[in-house]
Parts: sequence; C-alpha cells; structure tokens
Amino acid sequence: MSDPRPIGLFDSGVGGLTVLEAVARRMPFEDLLYLGDTARLPYGTKSPETVRRYARRAIGFLLAQDVKAVVVACNTASALALDAIEEMSPVPVVGVVAPGAEAAVAAARASDPAGQRVPIAVLATEATVVSDAYGHAIRALDPGRDVTHTACPLFVPLAEEGWTENEVARAAAALYLADVARSGARVVVLGCTHYPLLAGTIAGALPKGTVLVDSAETAARAVEAALPLAFRRGEASHGSTRLLVTDASDRLRRVAGRFLGRPAADLTLVDLL
Amino acid sequence: MSDPRPIGLFDSGVGGLTVLEAVARRMPFEDLLYLGDTARLPYGTKSPETVRRYARRAIGFLLAQDVKAVVVACNTASALALDAIEEMSPVPVVGVVAPGAEAAVAAARASDPAGQRVPIAVLATEATVVSDAYGHAIRALDPGRDVTHTACPLFVPLAEEGWTENEVARAAAALYLADVARSGARVVVLGCTHYPLLAGTIAGALPKGTVLVDSAETAARAVEAALPLAFRRGEASHGSTRLLVTDASDRLRRVAGRFLGRPAADLTLVDLL
Repeated sequence: MSDPRPIGLFDSGVGGLTVLEAVARRMPFEDLLYLGDTARLPYGTKSPETVRRYARRAIGFLLAQDVKAVVVACNTASALALDAIEEMSPVPVVGVVAPGAEAAVAAARASDPAGQRVPIAVLATEATVVSDAYGHAIRALDPGRDVTHTACPLFVPLAEEGWTENEVARAAAALYLADVARSGARVVVLGCTHYPLLAGTIAGALPKGTVLVDSAETAARAVEAALPLAFRRGEASHGSTRLLVTDASDRLRRVAGRFLGRPAADLTLVDLL
Repeated sequence: MSDPRPIGLFDSGVGGLTVLEAVARRMPFEDLLYLGDTARLPYGTKSPETVRRYARRAIGFLLAQDVKAVVVACNTASALALDAIEEMSPVPVVGVVAPGAEAAVAAARASDPAGQRVPIAVLATEATVVSDAYGHAIRALDPGRDVTHTACPLFVPLAEEGWTENEVARAAAALYLADVARSGARVVVLGCTHYPLLAGTIAGALPKGTVLVDSAETAARAVEAALPLAFRRGEASHGSTRLLVTDASDRLRRVAGRFLGRPAADLTLVDLL
C-alpha cells in the first residue's frame, strides 16, 4: 500500500521552510507541496479575523491540490486558525503550536530543580501572544506551569534583513528579553518561524544554559505520527519539493535562501484570488 | 459653486495619515476619506505586480465612494502604480513622489555651492528603490543631478514599534546611512511615510546641516493645485475625516496614533474583496 499524494505545508511566508526541511529529513520519500502566502504576509501583526480568512483561503487551495495532510507551519496561523482549518479539512491537520508546547514542557521538566517548576517563556508575534495559544497548550500538558509571553515584532524584519547577529539585533534582543532574562525562565519557546535565525543573539541575551525550543523538529515528528503507514508514499525514490508563493520578488528569493540555508529553489507564483 | 464630494486618500497602511493631516491643515473645509489597506500591508517589500493589483483594487473602492480627487499617500504605490491609477481614475490623481522630488530639487538648489551640484540621497522601501521613481522624477526636474537610493526596510517596523529614538533605531540608522553620510549628499528624501517618525535619529546619523525632505507638505500643496476653486467644498463648515481600514486591531490603533500624534479616531473596517 502506498499513497502517492503530496503532503501540503502552509505558511504566511517563507519562514516555514525550516519546517519543510525538517519534514523532508524525517520523511525523505514524500512529495512536499509548500504554499507561502507572501502576497499577504505578515500575518503576525494582523487581526484574528483576517488571519483566519487568509488561512482558510490558502488551505482551500492546498486541499484542491489533493494533499494527504496539511501542515500549518506558521505559528500565527496555528495559534489563531487551527480550529477553522481542521473544520474544513478532510485530511489530517498538524499545527506547530502543540508540538512546540510539547517540546517546551519536556525541556522544562528536564530542567526543573527538585520540587520546583521553572517558568516557560514564549516569544512570538503579537497576534500569537494575544491568542495565548501556547499558554493553553502548555497548561493542558502541565497544569500549574507558569507561562509568560513576549511579543518580539522586530525579530521578523531583522531575520529577513539578515541582521541576525549584528549590533541592531543584539540591541533589540536586549530590550525585548530583559524581563525574560530576569524571570527565572529556563526554557524559551521560539514561537515564530523567523526566530530560530536569531537563536544565537537570543541566547546571548538570556542566562547561560537557557534552553531554546524550536518547533520545526517536533512538528515534523507530529506529521509522521499523523500519517499511518498506509498513507506513506513508499520508498521507491526520493520525494520532490514544490514551492508555491502568492508573491515573488528578488527580495523574497533572498529571504527564502536565508531559511533554506541555500539558494531558494524555483518559486512558482500562484494566485489564490 | 461648491463641490461637496470628499477627497480620497489611499495608503497601504496608516503612515499616510501624515499626508491626511497636511491636507486637512491646508484645506480645512474639505471632507477627507482615508483608506488604509492594512490587511495587505506592507507594500514596500512586495513585487510591482502585486502592488499594482492591490492599489487598483483600493482606488476602485475610493472611486466608488464618489471622491473628487485621489491622493496616493503611499510612496511605494506612487512609485509603482501611479500610471495604473491615473489610467482608471476619472478624477485628478496626486502621488507623493513628484511633490517629494520637487521639494528635494528646491532644497538641493538652495544648498548647492557655486558651480557645484550636491547629490540627493533617497531613502525608501525596497520596491521604491528598485523602481527608481524618485530618480526619474528628480532628473526630469534637474538633469545631471546625482541621485543615490538606499533601502531602509527596518525603519518601517521600528516606526511602528515606537522605537524611533532608542539604541536599536540609532544602530540601524548608522548601518543604513554610513554610505549616505560619506557621499556628500546635503539633501535626503524621506521616501516612505514611516520615515519622518525617525527624522531625529536619521539626522543624527548624517552630517550636520543635512536637509531632510518629507513629501507630506508638498503633496498637500499639490492636492490644492489639482483642485480648481470650482471643485472646492466652500467655507461653510470644517470638513470631516473618515478613516477606513481593511484590517483593524489594537495594534493598528496604537500605530495609527503614532502617526496622528493623538489617539486614532474611529477606524472603520471595510472589505475590498
């Protein structure tokens, strides 16, 4: 038995390419179809209604391509629209918030001193912070665990500019993370696909030994778990990857390259309207 | 004779509110209808095709409200879509690039040493820089004047975050403006509605005496020039202002307040789809 349909991945932009890479490493025989809604990005500064409307339209497009699963690689869309997406999808849906929360709780338990619970700090877009989606997911797994949220909106343009380790990035991290550094949090969730590019600078603004949690790997594991063997492609040949975007420019190719760590493969322009 | 129709103003977001304020000061009896396409912002990082598509849709909406003139308060839309907008508009269209270029040339001529021409530096979004719209407009007025362009993408999120005079803003300005500071430019165009909020920090990164040109005032003058007396509203009573946006959130109200210099008046949500 083998299911040749592709796995669909959706993000507001190209930050979700780190999730795509993680899925490709873990399931190398699957075809992957990535859709970045680059004409409407960013989602993280917009209202829940607008994020849900955009996400539904993008997912409708992916479903029309006959995907066998939908991976919501965007933290903001996962935080605000996962219920709406699940409602419309006949195939399994995997977001990045639940896997990120799971990884954070595991890391926190591993670093709790006896009889104590260290707080978990979540760094995310303003929309994700307001939604408290990480807080809900973490408390569902570990009731009583303290969770703090910090919106770090400048981290997105800094990552896109490639300013991940310069003075501007360090000054921004110092400002955003001053309270987190003082809070006693030992585990910090990078709750936006862009933030891992600044991991070094973020770590530098936090006490030594702070664990940074990135949901790309755990999300890839969740995708594997969501696809029973009968729904895999089989091991005939390496899977292909197609990257679709709703707006393409030289700038976007440059930014996509930062997330892939190599020149961005062909981006195909599609229109969702 | 009196024309009671409102003047329409269009921007990708709320930065154009500075142009609205300038028009309101200069023509206090006119009704102003402002449309910010906040669901699709920013325009400045997107492709010319997408910017033109969004601009056409927004202008179509304004024209359907029976405006008597259209002010394109967004530099990126003025740079990339003014021709497309003029083509579809039966009423006068005023962009911000031509007035900004005019003001820049006047300022440059005023500071030219005898027999020399100081270069003009344009700071703008990536899309505006690539378009070379300011370069064209300046050279049309003053052939042979050197024009340099610098994209300063971080200035937009810095202005929205309210980080206009802190260490992060100063570090970003120092990086972006190092070449401009060395170039001998005496006149610097703030070619994006967000940049005037960082004027102090920008000036601090440039040689003393550098003139910063903001197109809001000159654009307002161009609006007045585009509306003959027969098309004015008359001086019966102060004009009203309506602010329409395609996405509204607490964050947006906060950001709009930064541009207005006072709490943002009611924002009305409209759907362009």
